[in-house]
Amino acid sequence: MHVSLSCLTKPVLHGYFRSSCSWRVRIALALKGIEYDQVPVNLIKDGGQQLTDQYKALNPMQQVPAFTIDGITLSQSLAIILYIEETRPGPRLFPTDPQKRAQVRMISDLIVSGIQPLQNLYVLQKIGAEKVQWAQHFILRGFEALEPLLKQTAGKYCVGDEISVADICLVPQVYNAERFKVDISQFPTIKRLNETLLEVEAFKASHPSCQPDTPSDLRS
Amino acid sequence: MHVSLSCLTKPVLHGYFRSSCSWRVRIALALKGIEYDQVPVNLIKDGGQQLTDQYKALNPMQQVPAFTIDGITLSQSLAIILYIEETRPGPRLFPTDPQKRAQVRMISDLIVSGIQPLQNLYVLQKIGAEKVQWAQHFILRGFEALEPLLKQTAGKYCVGDEISVADICLVPQVYNAERFKVDISQFPTIKRLNETLLEVEAFKASHPSCQPDTPSDLRS
Repeated sequence: MHVSLSCLTKPVLHGYFRSSCSWRVRIALALKGIEYDQVPVNLIKDGGQQLTDQYKALNPMQQVPAFTIDGITLSQSLAIILYIEETRPGPRLFPTDPQKRAQVRMISDLIVSGIQPLQNLYVLQKIGAEKVQWAQHFILRGFEALEPLLKQTAGKYCVGDEISVADICLVPQVYNAERFKVDISQFPTIKRLNETLLEVEAFKASHPSCQPDTPSDLRS
Repeated sequence: MHVSLSCLTKPVLHGYFRSSCSWRVRIALALKGIEYDQVPVNLIKDGGQQLTDQYKALNPMQQVPAFTIDGITLSQSLAIILYIEETRPGPRLFPTDPQKRAQVRMISDLIVSGIQPLQNLYVLQKIGAEKVQWAQHFILRGFEALEPLLKQTAGKYCVGDEISVADICLVPQVYNAERFKVDISQFPTIKRLNETLLEVEAFKASHPSCQPDTPSDLRS
């Protein structure tokens, strides 16, 4: 009998506790109840473990996350999450209504393409001394656009009353904003959604403060 | 008899001839054979027409494109394209195999999140004098990752032998690279795919050189 190796092994997430893109994937896995192994890739130590040839073979962009599942390795957090959504059971991460689905994608992409890339580690390293102001500028610019959109689409969560990929993108971005000392209280919808979502078990279990590679002084 | 207004009016694309994100949407619309009206938003003239209050109501990120269809206005190019894909007939823009779909998304997101945002107009305006070197740096960094991925996934097109969203993202990004004088010949797979795709009618008809708002000296 031939048994595919991919059925016997757990998926492996190559990530970093504090990476918002890694956290997105951890939330999706937690919501779906998928067991997986974590291989930490420390973005700071040894000059950045994502820069090794070994890691570059997993993700040529030399970023986390990379996710090995069903015999393939995927990078780009939304591509990973959508693969999980299409191949695994569990609560759906997109609404069924096409217009609501489009709103989820619009909000997700605003964060994933419009905010996060501009405050990514390798961009800030290139900016140098001005990096905090740079990150604040682009997070504020993004949140000023996100707030009125969410005011239109939100129910209990970002789009209506079901948790979706938009929520998966929002919470890690707010975490980044707080790291860069952006005052979230000026965005009441973002603040309220973030607080609600942080009470959800999948968001708690996947939080940067309690991952295998979280340093002891940052644990809570 | 009640007839929805959205059935009687053509969709409207608010875009700019040279915006790579607008071009992505134009390609998708051309591939699907969807008729639409274009409302040009000149990103340079009048200090940037995307910055008006009127446009901000359409897209609070103050970027193009924004697309009005079926009574809603969407922003974020991939959200627009996926809405078209899910609600309109015509050739599919994603493969049916889940692993191939994931590869299409990985390649698309590498471009849409990993390259384009870093050479976007509003980022380059913040960079100032060093903007050409900055754009070249991040396009090169992205293409160095894209080339080995495409070498694995490509057939006639980016993923196998069917045109997909990955192709829709690739060609406008190569156009941007050429504007910033990046030498594409060092990326043979990207170069070959781009040349093949530029021969496809939907890519030709949607090209920045022949849009209603293309200035006469840039027409071909």
